[in-house]
Amino acid sequence: MPPSLPHLPFTRLVGSLPPTVPFVGPETLERARGAPFVARIGANESAIGPSPRATAAMVAALDAREPRLYGDPENHALRTALAARHGVAADEIVVDAGIDTLLGLSVRLFMEAGDTAIGSLGAYPTFAYHVAGFGGRLEAVPYRALHEDPDALLAASHEHAARLVYLANPDNPMGTRVDREAVANLIDSLPGRCLLLLDEAYAEYTDETLDPVNPPIDTADPRVIRFRTFSKAWGMAGMRIGYAIGHRDVIAGFERIRNHFGVNRLAQIGALASLGDEGHLTRVRASVGAGRASIEALADEHGVSWVPSSTNFVALDFGDAERASAVMAALLSAGVFLRKPGVPPLDRHVRIGVGDERELAALAAGFGRISVPTRRRDGRPPATRDGR
Amino acid sequence: MPPSLPHLPFTRLVGSLPPTVPFVGPETLERARGAPFVARIGANESAIGPSPRATAAMVAALDAREPRLYGDPENHALRTALAARHGVAADEIVVDAGIDTLLGLSVRLFMEAGDTAIGSLGAYPTFAYHVAGFGGRLEAVPYRALHEDPDALLAASHEHAARLVYLANPDNPMGTRVDREAVANLIDSLPGRCLLLLDEAYAEYTDETLDPVNPPIDTADPRVIRFRTFSKAWGMAGMRIGYAIGHRDVIAGFERIRNHFGVNRLAQIGALASLGDEGHLTRVRASVGAGRASIEALADEHGVSWVPSSTNFVALDFGDAERASAVMAALLSAGVFLRKPGVPPLDRHVRIGVGDERELAALAAGFGRISVPTRRRDGRPPATRDGR
Repeated sequence: MPPSLPHLPFTRLVGSLPPTVPFVGPETLERARGAPFVARIGANESAIGPSPRATAAMVAALDAREPRLYGDPENHALRTALAARHGVAADEIVVDAGIDTLLGLSVRLFMEAGDTAIGSLGAYPTFAYHVAGFGGRLEAVPYRALHEDPDALLAASHEHAARLVYLANPDNPMGTRVDREAVANLIDSLPGRCLLLLDEAYAEYTDETLDPVNPPIDTADPRVIRFRTFSKAWGMAGMRIGYAIGHRDVIAGFERIRNHFGVNRLAQIGALASLGDEGHLTRVRASVGAGRASIEALADEHGVSWVPSSTNFVALDFGDAERASAVMAALLSAGVFLRKPGVPPLDRHVRIGVGDERELAALAAGFGRISVPTRRRDGRPPATRDGR
Repeated sequence: MPPSLPHLPFTRLVGSLPPTVPFVGPETLERARGAPFVARIGANESAIGPSPRATAAMVAALDAREPRLYGDPENHALRTALAARHGVAADEIVVDAGIDTLLGLSVRLFMEAGDTAIGSLGAYPTFAYHVAGFGGRLEAVPYRALHEDPDALLAASHEHAARLVYLANPDNPMGTRVDREAVANLIDSLPGRCLLLLDEAYAEYTDETLDPVNPPIDTADPRVIRFRTFSKAWGMAGMRIGYAIGHRDVIAGFERIRNHFGVNRLAQIGALASLGDEGHLTRVRASVGAGRASIEALADEHGVSWVPSSTNFVALDFGDAERASAVMAALLSAGVFLRKPGVPPLDRHVRIGVGDERELAALAAGFGRISVPTRRRDGRPPATRDGR
């Protein structure tokens, strides 16, 4: 008879980890409710999808039976194109299966068990998941005025002698951005031995030539790793491909621990084809801008405040967490998949992704059917439409 | 001015890791030689590719712009289908981006820094890469008669109080298999706190109903994790999808540390469609059997010994490592991508993958152009065709 599991323990660290997941997927919720959602606007996915050139290239690869072949473990062609795009060298870029994977590797590279990382309370949870998963400790500082707070991140990094600071700019889940000067100051004032992980997943929703969100890329500076993805504006979340840009000696560290054959071959092909279609980003920005305006108009119509966004989603302010939860529950029941922040002061918001017209209509119908409890922008108590 | 890198060190562990990679990719070699290979038969990839049903499903998903959506983080539909296929429960299966990823997670689950794992000298190097990458120590035992040696693995696991034993059955790079009784004995005699990682990447090249390679799956036994992939017989190496089967409490451990959104959505779709096409495996087995026979016949024609294989590749025996290296170098120059084992006594072999007819012809042409140095099967010194 085989021994029981207690004879085969996990490591002390894994044994101490709670069985949590960063996010519940919409498919899980669909199975629970027994029906598909009519609108899937809760995961900040693209309503548009990949560049038609990317789709064509991936279809051609399938026709040529390319899935039978491993991808190039060096991601050479893609790194070369990305290097040209960002004005850096190819060995200052590492490609992997999305920012989530790269964040995990970053924690592994720099944090000993017991080391501290700094993040923001209520920010993207997958970084916290990896810190815990590698035995680190996360000190989280509050948002300030619905923005991540570079000054507080900096102060905490000194107070806790942190190894890593995580900042998403633009931010998720609020969609806000902090001044690039504040980011530059954060970088320049980091404690010794501390790096900034600068998550730029949403950077392409802004025209970076006209209005750069973050300081210029400087790969001479080993204190910053910047993360980009094809999941958001490039519309390829399901393909799992992203990249990090940094000092070549830092990037070389990833080579020591990453899964060298970990990137999907079709993703490599699709991402490379995308980069040849800069116009796709222009179209996506226009479309997402219009989508945000529709959500904002809907919110205005119902007397709900909204947070100006630099991303493909808009945080609507329902005044307090209870109301926000009630609205989200009602919309979920109406078949609209959404998520909301769970931590004060963010938790009075519901995060609404830019969908297509059908999804926007479903959202509007959901708003119409429920009594949207809200707070007036002037700060007076909420007046719901039916007076309840 | 930014500080220099020494002020930002990696962890002690990462700092101690050599900048090695488990495998150099064929694309890297192509860039070095300045021309594409005419035959790519060195990475045990499928010459056939995915089931036509998988390809059709993935094309349809591209047409529907599905890459814009994240995959189901629970891999629910696929795990349900795999559970039915293997006669286990869905929570006894974890899906991730290939066996490489799952091996890395397994090391993370069970090995503290300084713990020991047991493997075979010259076996699949990615397991060793992960053991080193998480601070473990690998004790490797020699092959015996070109087979991995379960008795030696077992003895070493006791001698070193190992946490993990790694065995691929069928094996890579030799293509051989060990008796299922020997595997069953290994499992039953493992030291306390030690698990067997049983890599079954090549299992589907054998008809498992008629001639099972390994002991029956027994998920009541927490001492074994079995690894399967869609990369080999299912023909989807580039899609990065595989799975592990084990005791539900062991599988639950993966949930605590894996990247929950790490699996490509098209890979999920293609893998699920594959499972509806059992006939694809039948066709692949027939085709691979014929391909092996062609390679064996070519070897016979040139007086080169070969090793009976249970996989989609054949190890040819060139008598000693120097000759094997010379043959491989010559074939690489002729545009034939191959790999060979690097460790005695395996290193007198070159590993030849089953390709398509064009690739087999390129291999034959390569053999014809070079003087194939060999050893007669009777053990006498090699007699090359041109007498050199």
